Amino acid sequence: MPEFFNVLPPDEARALLLSQITAALPTTTIPTTQALNRVTAVPITAPHPLPNFRRSTMDGYAVRAADTYGASDSLPAFLEVVGEVPMGQAADIPFRSGQAVIVHTGGMIPPDADAVVQIEHTQTVGAAAVDEPPYEIELYRPVAPGQNLLQIGEDVAEKAEILPAGHWLRPQDLGGLLALGITELPVCRRPRVAILATGDEVINPAQMPGPGQIRDINSYTIAGQTERAGGVPVVLGIAPDNFAALHQMAAAGLAQADMLVMSAGSSVSVRDITVEVIDSLGQPGVLLHGVATRPGKPTIVAVVDGKPVLGLPGNPVSAMVQYDMFGLPALWQLQGVSRPPLRGVVYAQLSENIASETGREDYIPARLAETATGFAATPVFGKSNLIYTLVNADGLIKIPLNTGGVLAGETVEVRLF
Amino acid sequence: MPEFFNVLPPDEARALLLSQITAALPTTTIPTTQALNRVTAVPITAPHPLPNFRRSTMDGYAVRAADTYGASDSLPAFLEVVGEVPMGQAADIPFRSGQAVIVHTGGMIPPDADAVVQIEHTQTVGAAAVDEPPYEIELYRPVAPGQNLLQIGEDVAEKAEILPAGHWLRPQDLGGLLALGITELPVCRRPRVAILATGDEVINPAQMPGPGQIRDINSYTIAGQTERAGGVPVVLGIAPDNFAALHQMAAAGLAQADMLVMSAGSSVSVRDITVEVIDSLGQPGVLLHGVATRPGKPTIVAVVDGKPVLGLPGNPVSAMVQYDMFGLPALWQLQGVSRPPLRGVVYAQLSENIASETGREDYIPARLAETATGFAATPVFGKSNLIYTLVNADGLIKIPLNTGGVLAGETVEVRLF
Repeated sequence: MPEFFNVLPPDEARALLLSQITAALPTTTIPTTQALNRVTAVPITAPHPLPNFRRSTMDGYAVRAADTYGASDSLPAFLEVVGEVPMGQAADIPFRSGQAVIVHTGGMIPPDADAVVQIEHTQTVGAAAVDEPPYEIELYRPVAPGQNLLQIGEDVAEKAEILPAGHWLRPQDLGGLLALGITELPVCRRPRVAILATGDEVINPAQMPGPGQIRDINSYTIAGQTERAGGVPVVLGIAPDNFAALHQMAAAGLAQADMLVMSAGSSVSVRDITVEVIDSLGQPGVLLHGVATRPGKPTIVAVVDGKPVLGLPGNPVSAMVQYDMFGLPALWQLQGVSRPPLRGVVYAQLSENIASETGREDYIPARLAETATGFAATPVFGKSNLIYTLVNADGLIKIPLNTGGVLAGETVEVRLF
Repeated sequence: MPEFFNVLPPDEARALLLSQITAALPTTTIPTTQALNRVTAVPITAPHPLPNFRRSTMDGYAVRAADTYGASDSLPAFLEVVGEVPMGQAADIPFRSGQAVIVHTGGMIPPDADAVVQIEHTQTVGAAAVDEPPYEIELYRPVAPGQNLLQIGEDVAEKAEILPAGHWLRPQDLGGLLALGITELPVCRRPRVAILATGDEVINPAQMPGPGQIRDINSYTIAGQTERAGGVPVVLGIAPDNFAALHQMAAAGLAQADMLVMSAGSSVSVRDITVEVIDSLGQPGVLLHGVATRPGKPTIVAVVDGKPVLGLPGNPVSAMVQYDMFGLPALWQLQGVSRPPLRGVVYAQLSENIASETGREDYIPARLAETATGFAATPVFGKSNLIYTLVNADGLIKIPLNTGGVLAGETVEVRLF
């Protein structure tokens, strides 16, 4: 028989789960353009500096800074413009003190220049209709060496580590890789999550329920949460409430996936079967059976042969909240993500009192409205059997562990869905 | 020639853009299980109430509440247990006053019952090893009519509008639809975004840049932002800096997409060509050419034949910030989304002073660290040419329009990527 721990606070329960996950995902090399939301499998270093030539950040003239010192509106400097660097081409235009070369924003700087003068701070001498070099300019402001240009390596130095292993790739990360010509990279395989519903009363959503039957929805809410987090859901179907059937489907599911999530039937007998089944799958089995949260107290947190296994309550609200609390961190852990993306929150003024118990973290669905002074949060009260409390909400108000409740008018943290 | 408005504040500029978008996306019917992140095309109503039978929320006994009134530890009520409702089956077990029926959490309630007594508040009379009805129980707490059960329609009433048109579908929404047997539904086609890079200096990322050349990254950062928002990016490639070529590629791109985004070359002459090209594509053309933000002031905001068209600055940071500011709201608008998902923010203590100018909204990349007292935000300073300022950041600090800057130690809003 399993040895149960007591009910743990959610942070401790999560830390215990993550510490026991030893499974790691295989690596695969894919095109960078398809790597959005994937996770780097190795550290990535810069093959060359970025930029790898000195670039102008202004439209204007490449100059020797010393030629501009002391220039002002009343005492302009005079320079002879001797050429133009076309965009996308080498700037191999030699010039000497007293001369300047036309450069465009993003263009290369000639080797003899050490600064750029903005075109707005100059004026062509004489009335040339077309500024075709050679011509003369007046210059009204001094520039310092290095001004208005990007140095070689100013964005990234050569051989710098640009991304660590375990980095979750966002649009700008793809841009940063492609800027360096890194068009493919090793990433973790996407984690596969086997999802198994249980309960003699549960039927496929396409069927018409008879008396006492309900449609399976947890398989699909959990699949959606998995997809959003970059995982691949594998919906196994519905197991009847008996050990043999549940064991067979759970074992088959875990064998083909990196994580197993069981949406347990909600009655006590089915929860007991779920615990027995998980313990029969491998070591260490059930780590704890109970988390100090509402909704979702009877959550089963387990690890089997290094893979996370969760037994979620059957109530749809509990199942979603608990999967968010344990399943998503487990997905990051499997991929070796060192800094999971931060969850967005908004702070809002509470419209109604919320009661809570100390020693328990509460999550209350809430609808948000923008007001002149910020956000207002209205709790969507309802039993955790009611999926529409989540459909009608924008996020969850978190009531911390040791708070007796929150009063109307207080500011609450709403974790966005 | 186009008539330019002055530089507008971002909120006004966005409102102007959205007001001119008249294109609407065609509707397509897809399976609910594949509708994550899609948008409802019509209002959806409940075909039947949910739940459609009275369900127990506890393991215990279905009773007549009146039989329990006055029950206490010292003066328990006695009831005869006459049967059991199996999970997933009809509860057609008749019983009369003084009797009770075993029910499980989620199970159906017999027609003769109006409440459920929790098993923890009862005790079997005598020493029956197996609680096989008939047997007698003592009951120590009264229950009120309706207690510990879900009424028919308590989650959703029949014919209630469960989702409006223009609703962006999240995991719980799929669950709510499937709970009612709605296994397919009409959604908007995913919006297609044609993305065109320009600039004689810009080359494909797979190529090795020669002197003065840089790799195209904006096409891919914008594609990534589009994908994340549920759109379909169509990367058109790189147009050279001349009217004819740019016009031809832009017109072809717009014809096959719902939105066109041009990542303009950064020099003045290319920006001018971009404006001319957009105006030549159709009416009304360029709405404004300049937004009071940094980075990204020279953004071109346009509508052509009802479709949004953006000319983004070539600098990668500017391009990403501006696409976030105008492109993503345009994607929501095209799909008719009435309440776009809220952007997550965190509030953090600033580690260094940030200077700003009044009359301009500033966005500064920032890295976040969790501290004992909340988050600390460290600005990642750098020119908007430097993509790695975004790679090294977790979000953007927003400095509002009429603020002269923010001091170290102050609390700032960081918009998460």
